[in-house]
Amino acid sequence: MKNIIIASTSTLHGSGYLDYILDEIAIFFKNANTILFIPYARPSGISHTEYTTKVAEAFAKINKNVKGIHEFENPIEAIQNAEAIFTGGGNTFVLTYQLYKNNLIEALQTAVKNGTPYLGTSAGSNICGLTIKTTNDMPIVYPPSFNALAFVPFNINPHYLDPDTNSTHMGETRETRINEFHHYNTPPVIGLREGSWLQVNENSIILKGTLTARIFEYNKAPYEVETGTELNFLK
Amino acid sequence: MKNIIIASTSTLHGSGYLDYILDEIAIFFKNANTILFIPYARPSGISHTEYTTKVAEAFAKINKNVKGIHEFENPIEAIQNAEAIFTGGGNTFVLTYQLYKNNLIEALQTAVKNGTPYLGTSAGSNICGLTIKTTNDMPIVYPPSFNALAFVPFNINPHYLDPDTNSTHMGETRETRINEFHHYNTPPVIGLREGSWLQVNENSIILKGTLTARIFEYNKAPYEVETGTELNFLK
Repeated sequence: MKNIIIASTSTLHGSGYLDYILDEIAIFFKNANTILFIPYARPSGISHTEYTTKVAEAFAKINKNVKGIHEFENPIEAIQNAEAIFTGGGNTFVLTYQLYKNNLIEALQTAVKNGTPYLGTSAGSNICGLTIKTTNDMPIVYPPSFNALAFVPFNINPHYLDPDTNSTHMGETRETRINEFHHYNTPPVIGLREGSWLQVNENSIILKGTLTARIFEYNKAPYEVETGTELNFLK
Repeated sequence: MKNIIIASTSTLHGSGYLDYILDEIAIFFKNANTILFIPYARPSGISHTEYTTKVAEAFAKINKNVKGIHEFENPIEAIQNAEAIFTGGGNTFVLTYQLYKNNLIEALQTAVKNGTPYLGTSAGSNICGLTIKTTNDMPIVYPPSFNALAFVPFNINPHYLDPDTNSTHMGETRETRINEFHHYNTPPVIGLREGSWLQVNENSIILKGTLTARIFEYNKAPYEVETGTELNFLK
């Protein structure tokens, strides 16, 4: 019954919030009138209310209402009763901390298993993987675990960036970081470039958008997959 | 009695490992024949032995011996008996995990308090701050805490990068990330550019190298400080 969109980013350079994917979202959320929004990742530290207002403005364009999970007395019940769920980007550690604090990991897993459509962007996509160990974010709070929602049997690296061959900066490239991940962990990692997303159903995980994605498997050279590729072989 | 060098990076683009700072290190470690090397951060996942060999080659140029902490039966005693200590770069989470696993946090704090000279680069510098919450690294392992050695009363952001004004990438800039840190934490953060280091003595913390550094204080606009600036006011 799974029904998930895991998007690399909310926003493409030069366009508005969610603009590039709004038509897809309208189809994806076609049976929902009100979307439960999880604003916990707080990009740039904005408040839950500010973030929810921003999301509501975007969803108004496709005639959807938005309600922030922080508006509910009981967030577990909010998830149980949701017609559809959207978790926005921001800081993955802050998001994960707050999900554990409110005891929402299992509630989200159950809802999604039962067919509640789930949309994630950026940090909201990171948590769809097995762990948050391939986030790009700064660890500004200490979550009780790096284990995530495990909607898919691999890890996500959103905002995937190719090495800048002109750079003189000595910090690690994204590929180096993911290779380091594979010295300590075996699950595959999907490097999702901005504008790409995964469409996940019960037995299918398809790469969408115009770009290729980069796949990192343990003990294998990384490789590219074309848009439209079925990725349910990855585990 | 503190005597510490906290360097942004081990290597500048186009030059060899530690080359840019080797003359400083020769003076800093003038009373030590053998340097205890902590290779736990394992850049690109290389082994402790490989990493120690690389460091020994660099230190041979200034006639210093290097011994890796992994070569000792008892790493706590290795620290207690060290003439001087160097912690190299790599992954800050891997490094922190291994320091806690081997119960070395207090041993390092005691040794440095008692005057053992300590040199850190990159991840080895990150851990000199209050916490590792301003590392740039990927959280590929889960350490038991983000608390670090607290040799200085603020946090370090090594490899500090200015925003790329030409970038179309929607990932957060370094400045945005550090501002997000200050939504959840109050200590100052020093953004140390590659080629900069802090020279720390008992009552003095001086910025060295040719570049300015960027200071982020809670509830203040970030600002630049010139090389040679005394930073012991930061806390």
